[in-house]
Amino acid sequence: MSTGPLPSADVFARECASRPVLQNITGRWGVLVLAALADSTCRFSELRRRIDGVSERMLAQTLQNLERDGLVRRDVLTTIPPHVEYSLTGLGSRITEPLLALIGLVEESVPEIVAAQERHDHTI
Amino acid sequence: MSTGPLPSADVFARECASRPVLQNITGRWGVLVLAALADSTCRFSELRRRIDGVSERMLAQTLQNLERDGLVRRDVLTTIPPHVEYSLTGLGSRITEPLLALIGLVEESVPEIVAAQERHDHTI
Repeated sequence: MSTGPLPSADVFARECASRPVLQNITGRWGVLVLAALADSTCRFSELRRRIDGVSERMLAQTLQNLERDGLVRRDVLTTIPPHVEYSLTGLGSRITEPLLALIGLVEESVPEIVAAQERHDHTI
Repeated sequence: MSTGPLPSADVFARECASRPVLQNITGRWGVLVLAALADSTCRFSELRRRIDGVSERMLAQTLQNLERDGLVRRDVLTTIPPHVEYSLTGLGSRITEPLLALIGLVEESVPEIVAAQERHDHTI
């Protein structure tokens, strides 16, 4: 059925299949796309508005990578005109949970982080 | 004292200070450096061996970014010859926790992800 067992995935190993997946998830836009979809199903244009600064091209590529990895699902609705909606798959939801925890922590730590940056820049 | 309040950090906003921090953490090598340091304090050469494929330059830059953000601490030991050791700060440990959860999930989901990739590539 499958191409063979991957008995012990290890992101530290250069050739492990888990590494590019981790990169798609944690890439510049992957994190934000997953986090946005955790809130609700979105159309492409909604995602573009929500994720301030992403280009059309980068958003399309990010969605394609996440879809290929089975984390994001793309549904074409047969409305007139047709709409395309993106949502998280079950796997995508599970994987997005720790990402949301990470984002929450980073956001609440901004004052502490900015203070560290200022200390660092003043001692250089 | 500080440069001013950041009342509501929001990674979705282009100019928010949280976004570059999230990028340092989740960047190609940031995730792996933090995860490696979660296990133990490491010297530069140990990190390089552990993180298969990272160049000296990229590792140095990643460590510098994480140090500036207050997540990684760099200690110069006055041994002969002097040694430099890297470890997580308190904040670094807190932020690394959800990252380890994410890595664990991705590693255990590799068979499911590879199957999704194969389905996707066969339907194109």
